[in-house]
Amino acid sequence: MTTETSTPEQQDEHSTKGAYVEGGKEFNRDMNYIPDRITRDAAPPQVGPTPEKLWPVEADRYRLVVAWACPWANRAIIVRRLLGLENAISMAIAGPTHDKRSWTFDNGDPGADGVPRDPVLGYERLQEAYFARYPDYPRGITVPAIVDVPTKSVVTNDFPWITLDFSTEWTQFHRDGAPDLYPEKLRDEMDEVMKLIFTEINNGVYRSGFAGSQEAYEAAYDRLFAALDKISERLETRRYLMGDTITEADVRLFTTLARFDPVYHGHFKTNRSKLSEMPTLWAYARDLFQTPGFGDTTNFVDIKRHYYEVHTDINPTGIVPKGPDLSNWLTPHHREQLGGRPFGDGTPPGPIERADERVPAGAGAE
Amino acid sequence: MTTETSTPEQQDEHSTKGAYVEGGKEFNRDMNYIPDRITRDAAPPQVGPTPEKLWPVEADRYRLVVAWACPWANRAIIVRRLLGLENAISMAIAGPTHDKRSWTFDNGDPGADGVPRDPVLGYERLQEAYFARYPDYPRGITVPAIVDVPTKSVVTNDFPWITLDFSTEWTQFHRDGAPDLYPEKLRDEMDEVMKLIFTEINNGVYRSGFAGSQEAYEAAYDRLFAALDKISERLETRRYLMGDTITEADVRLFTTLARFDPVYHGHFKTNRSKLSEMPTLWAYARDLFQTPGFGDTTNFVDIKRHYYEVHTDINPTGIVPKGPDLSNWLTPHHREQLGGRPFGDGTPPGPIERADERVPAGAGAE
Repeated sequence: MTTETSTPEQQDEHSTKGAYVEGGKEFNRDMNYIPDRITRDAAPPQVGPTPEKLWPVEADRYRLVVAWACPWANRAIIVRRLLGLENAISMAIAGPTHDKRSWTFDNGDPGADGVPRDPVLGYERLQEAYFARYPDYPRGITVPAIVDVPTKSVVTNDFPWITLDFSTEWTQFHRDGAPDLYPEKLRDEMDEVMKLIFTEINNGVYRSGFAGSQEAYEAAYDRLFAALDKISERLETRRYLMGDTITEADVRLFTTLARFDPVYHGHFKTNRSKLSEMPTLWAYARDLFQTPGFGDTTNFVDIKRHYYEVHTDINPTGIVPKGPDLSNWLTPHHREQLGGRPFGDGTPPGPIERADERVPAGAGAE
Repeated sequence: MTTETSTPEQQDEHSTKGAYVEGGKEFNRDMNYIPDRITRDAAPPQVGPTPEKLWPVEADRYRLVVAWACPWANRAIIVRRLLGLENAISMAIAGPTHDKRSWTFDNGDPGADGVPRDPVLGYERLQEAYFARYPDYPRGITVPAIVDVPTKSVVTNDFPWITLDFSTEWTQFHRDGAPDLYPEKLRDEMDEVMKLIFTEINNGVYRSGFAGSQEAYEAAYDRLFAALDKISERLETRRYLMGDTITEADVRLFTTLARFDPVYHGHFKTNRSKLSEMPTLWAYARDLFQTPGFGDTTNFVDIKRHYYEVHTDINPTGIVPKGPDLSNWLTPHHREQLGGRPFGDGTPPGPIERADERVPAGAGAE
């Protein structure tokens, strides 16, 4: 069932830390998260493991903290929007970069002292929400995280379950026409597909970029492109990963594909080819990008700044590439020819209502 | 007349030095070379400036020291081969990497002590040839360099004149059918074109990669791609830069284009697009690559190793990307449709005779 847990061995990348590459070593993602979950009536969850502590689904109680830059957080942004949870769960958007201590609310309101803070939590750093719960919290401060607003303390940062719980536990707050992103009859197959996407692709790009030796890098590169080829073949005849309709599996693949040419190709040396040179995957990615919920939550400026500015051990100058030209994301993809009903029996989400949740002009693919 | 000199301000990249990026600064190429030239009978040269010291053209006296990796040296390798000077001027090929002190003859014969040395000069390091001439030589040790074999001391490393002198001074040793790479009637226009290629393209990629600030980088990027677009337009209707026939201008452009996708696109962040995404330039580059003298002197393995291993200030891990797939260099280019006579009244060079001058199997585009 659970597809995205493994033995913790190292601090995680979407968390805050100083060094990403360990000489001579393969990169291993730290998967030790705060395992709490938010479920309907705090009952045991519909899917997945039951942690020690459960929190009840409740509108206007929790704040989802994300960064546009982070692919793991981007999942949560997309799923929240596809399901129409904006009115039940508010969202705080951290800036694109962080230091060793924490992600910071660079986009927040500068107070009397000129320091930007999240307007709801009043925090300058996400770390404060972790410390409010665990004063000596020893691990990296990661996004996405859900914060309990009354106590201003973190509830969970266990990202694979955050989105699946949005789908399965928060149903009473879904918008009319919300798609079923984790359909019961597909779950076994989906879990297999999502496991491949996670271990080989989502994480595969990091394994390549943070490899500590030439050998580890080359093995990671081969493993990544073997998986991309396999997934590409699957998508030759299916419009989406699970068939006719968008599911969470597509969300999880999309966030890596969106970062492939602007970041991973150069920064992580995943350069057998660009995404735009892999015809099936490229058409698939553009199809999603042009679907409400995907491209409109993709902030290429923050994405590029995050990786190139934060990973000083692989980009010591901190210079952010000006390319590539990203207007090609808006070109015709012709995937409609495969048929399909993107939202199944549902409908696409409407425009983003809150101005502060919209990707700033110039940061998308225009 | 002279197209490739400028005020020296900084140590040169194809030379040996420790740091390539200077914070906050634009990259400026050190153009202070040993200006001696080798001319027929040591008479004033046919073209360009007359230095204080002239050396006579003489077969079997000089040794051209190159590295396959270096674009400036690659010019000399190509021109020597196109003109058939292999039997008059021998060639020493240094390894792909160097330290602060010198390029080294990694491919040479290991002596009794196991240290590889150039078999003709007996040197482990090219630096020794510079010191034989100037015991306190203070500048970077660069390739290409020409060494006087009897005294084992460097004659010149002034690369723009090395190749033009091959064309204009060494005529008595040219092979039958050698092309005229610097035709008299085209020189004024060629000098203009070569100036653009040098300042904007050959050097433009370094200006981008070694920029010491975001602003300097972005300005360099814009300047580079403006020049590439301009040159591309020129090549839409001309098979080669100067018209129907290959000249030294093509050699000078080719060596940068050959390194574009394997190195500059990622390592130097010249990533508006890959060369393979610029249709005219890409077809032009493949046309040359598939012409004897060009692709057969291009060693992609050494090229990638050089940049990614030597520039530790922009690639501290020293990891060399496995991509991109380079077999696309051998695809049809269709430039024959523009007509043209690649070697004018001459003929292409035959196969490379000396085994040790051939690019090793697996290092080209196969």
